[in-house]
Amino acid sequence: MAKAPVLTPRADDFPRWYQDLVGKAELADNGPVRGTMVVRPYGYGLWERMQQEMDARIKEAGAANAYFPLFIPQSYLTKEAEHVEGFAPELAVVTHAGGKELEEPVVVRPTSETIVNDYFSKWVQSYRDLPLLINQWANVVRWELRPRVFLRTTEFLWQEGHTAHATYEDARAYAARIHREVYADFMENVLAMDTVPGRKTARERFAGAVNTLTLEGMMGDGKALQLATSHELGQNFAKAFHTRYLSKDGTQEYVWQTSWGSTTRMIGALVMTHGDDDGLRVPPRLAPVQAVVLAVKDDEAVLAEVRAIGERLRAAGVRVHVDDRVDTPFGRRAVDWELKGVPVRIEVGPRDLAQGSAVLVRRIAGGKEPVAIGALTELVPRALTEDQALLLAESRERRARRTAEVTTVAEAVEAAATGWARIPWDVLGPEGEARLAEQGVTVRCLVGADGSVPERDDQPGNVAVVARAY
Amino acid sequence: MAKAPVLTPRADDFPRWYQDLVGKAELADNGPVRGTMVVRPYGYGLWERMQQEMDARIKEAGAANAYFPLFIPQSYLTKEAEHVEGFAPELAVVTHAGGKELEEPVVVRPTSETIVNDYFSKWVQSYRDLPLLINQWANVVRWELRPRVFLRTTEFLWQEGHTAHATYEDARAYAARIHREVYADFMENVLAMDTVPGRKTARERFAGAVNTLTLEGMMGDGKALQLATSHELGQNFAKAFHTRYLSKDGTQEYVWQTSWGSTTRMIGALVMTHGDDDGLRVPPRLAPVQAVVLAVKDDEAVLAEVRAIGERLRAAGVRVHVDDRVDTPFGRRAVDWELKGVPVRIEVGPRDLAQGSAVLVRRIAGGKEPVAIGALTELVPRALTEDQALLLAESRERRARRTAEVTTVAEAVEAAATGWARIPWDVLGPEGEARLAEQGVTVRCLVGADGSVPERDDQPGNVAVVARAY
Repeated sequence: MAKAPVLTPRADDFPRWYQDLVGKAELADNGPVRGTMVVRPYGYGLWERMQQEMDARIKEAGAANAYFPLFIPQSYLTKEAEHVEGFAPELAVVTHAGGKELEEPVVVRPTSETIVNDYFSKWVQSYRDLPLLINQWANVVRWELRPRVFLRTTEFLWQEGHTAHATYEDARAYAARIHREVYADFMENVLAMDTVPGRKTARERFAGAVNTLTLEGMMGDGKALQLATSHELGQNFAKAFHTRYLSKDGTQEYVWQTSWGSTTRMIGALVMTHGDDDGLRVPPRLAPVQAVVLAVKDDEAVLAEVRAIGERLRAAGVRVHVDDRVDTPFGRRAVDWELKGVPVRIEVGPRDLAQGSAVLVRRIAGGKEPVAIGALTELVPRALTEDQALLLAESRERRARRTAEVTTVAEAVEAAATGWARIPWDVLGPEGEARLAEQGVTVRCLVGADGSVPERDDQPGNVAVVARAY
Repeated sequence: MAKAPVLTPRADDFPRWYQDLVGKAELADNGPVRGTMVVRPYGYGLWERMQQEMDARIKEAGAANAYFPLFIPQSYLTKEAEHVEGFAPELAVVTHAGGKELEEPVVVRPTSETIVNDYFSKWVQSYRDLPLLINQWANVVRWELRPRVFLRTTEFLWQEGHTAHATYEDARAYAARIHREVYADFMENVLAMDTVPGRKTARERFAGAVNTLTLEGMMGDGKALQLATSHELGQNFAKAFHTRYLSKDGTQEYVWQTSWGSTTRMIGALVMTHGDDDGLRVPPRLAPVQAVVLAVKDDEAVLAEVRAIGERLRAAGVRVHVDDRVDTPFGRRAVDWELKGVPVRIEVGPRDLAQGSAVLVRRIAGGKEPVAIGALTELVPRALTEDQALLLAESRERRARRTAEVTTVAEAVEAAATGWARIPWDVLGPEGEARLAEQGVTVRCLVGADGSVPERDDQPGNVAVVARAY
């Protein structure tokens, strides 16, 4: 008899599978206030690893962390016209505090461009103060009508970078550097996620930006998810907040700015990219637990051995967890680690031990075989390297297989039912984009004929990548 | 001619000195919404180091990080009677969101016991799920009438631990463990701060706790600052939220709980404990920058040498920063690093270089002398070890010198004008405590006759440590 599935199979109902997995792998629960979430320790462990990897890359790019207030005076939001139009419908407003009604209501930050510029305008005096490169790790709030855990939540966690530069060229180059060296590198080498780097169309740009660079990933159901964006803000906020500097020539000039962000949504992307019908599969370079060593039975020699294996793997540089909760049935624990997607499982029972062996279970490559305990410190790191490459290859293969080259709006809509479509931008254009939107299909980004990120929307040979999106 | 002081001298006006230092060392600015703050990169760098050290200790104590929502339904706060009474006057309330008035207003978390218990009651089923040990790094909001940057801010950053245990003894032991192994160890060995560990009186306890353990530090002006607290919550929240477990005997039991927190207030404590009239002095084990290597002049050989020294010190395990901003006058940069309290400064000019030497400036031990460049990798780590010990010794000496043993309320009030007083609790008692409070003096904590943390308020020999406090 086939075992009953722990999760709704993806093919039956992808959204339901996603909800099942997020709950059963103990990643997150829905919060009591609509659209909020409780990130549970295992889910938060994934976020901590994302933070570590991302933070190191951000610091390598020269930005320093700081912290700006959660509360922004309502009047700040209105200073940049496009920005307020974009965010006004999503704001949460504090009207009462300390037992009184406030004279001016304060907004819970949906993003921090306005308050950051208020301080940049004080801190930046001369060209010597530039570039000013700041990042912050924080929570933000955007009231969501159709929330979905990790993907679209009323409150989410993110990093938001904010920079000011002396010239247009410097700002532009920095936005591109973050896009490439921080975000694209992280997605490919840590998350093992294939992404398309590209440029947003005017319709899809960040509210207040002059250009938005994006990374788009294909999820397991063929839909697209925007993973991280870098914005060139031009001088829009600088003019609204009078952020100026004294140039070497002695003139007052407005700074050129960028902002860029990535969020807890990446946890949702991880699930929808690498998850299968048995649960999550975590790329080893990200995994907070790369290998789990399980004691099959409550046996003194077994318990001693799993702890010793744990120590040796830890010494070999593996992030390892020893599961010695023998008061919980072994089968239940095995299913739990499978759900959580730990790449390698090492199971040790009395019979294995008698033969000096353990059972090595591979969550990503698949397979289950007895191996000599003495060989584990060599086999496990090798398995982790293989698994990381496997997941990236799978993700690449999916996009190649499910992307269609098309030349009409009708074909693009048809392709978007199961995957992505690529259509020449000079065929589609803003009008075709509007017609696609009526069908719930959007231009995820524009890419150059050679796959590079275009300098302009109307660059000859640009291709629009279109899809349904989360 | 003596140089004009950069800061208001402490002896003239301690609060003004504090504000000056926080601003000029670029630790923080006041935010636009009253009581909020902008933590600037150097201040945030101190916080990041605090987080790293604290987080490692918290994980060592077995707790895992998670994240609970910022927004709590207003009704949750009212479920624990003492808790709501304590926090109601400080709440910020969101009444409008997404362009509409909310059906139930939501509160911006002042602390998370209520929302945590809502989930603990779902996650805890059996004795196998206990102990449940959770921590979160987050922002919280308490509307402040008399805000002061870092010390009392409307929004602050903190870690808050929340745990559930099967027995009273286990919960009590865990609160004590956090107090000792996380907080006291961190204060002494990283912040180089002398603190008194003790027990809060009923009057000073956390709203909703049955016992609060505290660490109290003496600031440069002789006032006290509460640095970190661990609470035994008994079964108060468990009963309010029905957090129960199935015992080994098959009965339903309420869990026993703890909570514990430490905040960005520790940055204020650092300033007021170790700062002097020239600025901050950062203990080397905390310092994000332990040594700064300055190029005195714009000279190719000098610039090459400061970078080489930087590399060698980094390789020797020193957190080092190379200051090659030769377009800014050297004197201004030297004052800036002095203000920021970097323990060791290494200054290299063309004349030094000609002699193979550099000037070593000690911010904490004092002194300024030429040393051979080749000796720096040995001298600098040794200086850092000495400086760490010096700061702790200074902080200890201050408390010893400014604490008086007294036997009456009048003497205690007099002593509190310049320092602390110790008075037998059986002499003072709750009535004496109330009389002290009328004079603005509070019981910071009770300590046992032998300096240990008392098990009960009325334990024979208990001594009350009383002071004015921030």
